[in-house]
Amino acid sequence: MRLLLMSNSTNAGEEYLAHGIGEIGKFLGEKKVTALFLPYAAVTFSWDEYEKKVRKKFREAGHDVVSLHHAGDEAAAVREAEAIVVGGGNTWHLLTVLQKKGLMPLIRERVRAGVPYIGWSAGSNLACPTIKTTNDMPIIQPQDFNALGLIPFQINPHYLDANPEGHAGETREMRIREFLKINPGMYVAGLREGTMLRVEDEKMSLIGEKPLRLFREGMKPVELTAADPLDFLLLTQ
Amino acid sequence: MRLLLMSNSTNAGEEYLAHGIGEIGKFLGEKKVTALFLPYAAVTFSWDEYEKKVRKKFREAGHDVVSLHHAGDEAAAVREAEAIVVGGGNTWHLLTVLQKKGLMPLIRERVRAGVPYIGWSAGSNLACPTIKTTNDMPIIQPQDFNALGLIPFQINPHYLDANPEGHAGETREMRIREFLKINPGMYVAGLREGTMLRVEDEKMSLIGEKPLRLFREGMKPVELTAADPLDFLLLTQ
Repeated sequence: MRLLLMSNSTNAGEEYLAHGIGEIGKFLGEKKVTALFLPYAAVTFSWDEYEKKVRKKFREAGHDVVSLHHAGDEAAAVREAEAIVVGGGNTWHLLTVLQKKGLMPLIRERVRAGVPYIGWSAGSNLACPTIKTTNDMPIIQPQDFNALGLIPFQINPHYLDANPEGHAGETREMRIREFLKINPGMYVAGLREGTMLRVEDEKMSLIGEKPLRLFREGMKPVELTAADPLDFLLLTQ
Repeated sequence: MRLLLMSNSTNAGEEYLAHGIGEIGKFLGEKKVTALFLPYAAVTFSWDEYEKKVRKKFREAGHDVVSLHHAGDEAAAVREAEAIVVGGGNTWHLLTVLQKKGLMPLIRERVRAGVPYIGWSAGSNLACPTIKTTNDMPIIQPQDFNALGLIPFQINPHYLDANPEGHAGETREMRIREFLKINPGMYVAGLREGTMLRVEDEKMSLIGEKPLRLFREGMKPVELTAADPLDFLLLTQ
């Protein structure tokens, strides 16, 4: 299985996908790939706009995307995809649309069969067993919270260490601790902005300058860098 | 109907419930009330601890609480409650427990019949038509997203104007805009920390120094202060 799971599309002050497109290019390889793009996390802008924005960056990297919303036969488009790219936005909307279309099992099957999967933000949540560690507002109710389960642990994208000053709401770490209490035995990787996970079969590595913060019930949180072994997270828990 | 819906329990740098307990005292009146406390939003600390913490503050205000988790007959405890108090924590956990216990219709009925309702954070989300504007992590899957519907609009508690510096994830306003796109016609009140809404039948007022930020699809967001009329939000939309 080949996965590139990014915390976010855009770092503060940078251009769209700027920090990720180089890694996406390397991940897809030298031969041009036209990936299938899933735009359904977009809510406040159109799928056409989303495709255009992502296509621009992919072309800069020598690749291309075509959005699934153009396909007459969506299942065929997924079956024939050279690579699958899932953009960020609202995870609840993304999951609800894919469940309604009945495409979740097929996407899972294709990626498990070796089709490269690239996701950022909501697209990384979708690769997890469930969407229970999303930061997004539950604006729409999906059939259930089960996601693709391409990895056996949970990612919390846009992981954030502290609240804005003067704000007393739960910190991200407090929210993750609540998740772990109800879901003990699961690992949660707090993936800071600007970082991503690359999976090549049983190997996984962190890309980016910031460490990831790993949580598990009863375990002291651990900071893991690009130099640390991460393959153990891919073992069934 | 009598409701006191607070954004949060604790302002940054203050003691637990410090900013709210005076208003809670006024809302409950001069005669001592022993309110029924619903502690089920607590996940990482015990219901006993939660009751103790809330009781301490209520006693300072001349009132008291008894937590529902002690009741042998829970439905009877709700039916006989002088007031209902719903504490903050994780909204998903709160809703899931109350749905499993089958208590949602009875709580709704009692509050509609005039039993005073006090909520903060998750307790304010619970008073809305749905929990679709919660900030909490969906650590557990409820039967559905429907809440008590004591008010016809949505509250976003802990409303926050900006992200921490250097963080590029969605702002709260962007998240609310996504909700409105999928749920047009609804109002969302962004309730900043330190503020609360008090409902007395068809009257509603904002308490606190900060304005609330009101959102609706197609409408420019409006800042409303304690001096502005808010009763229109109680009309069926």
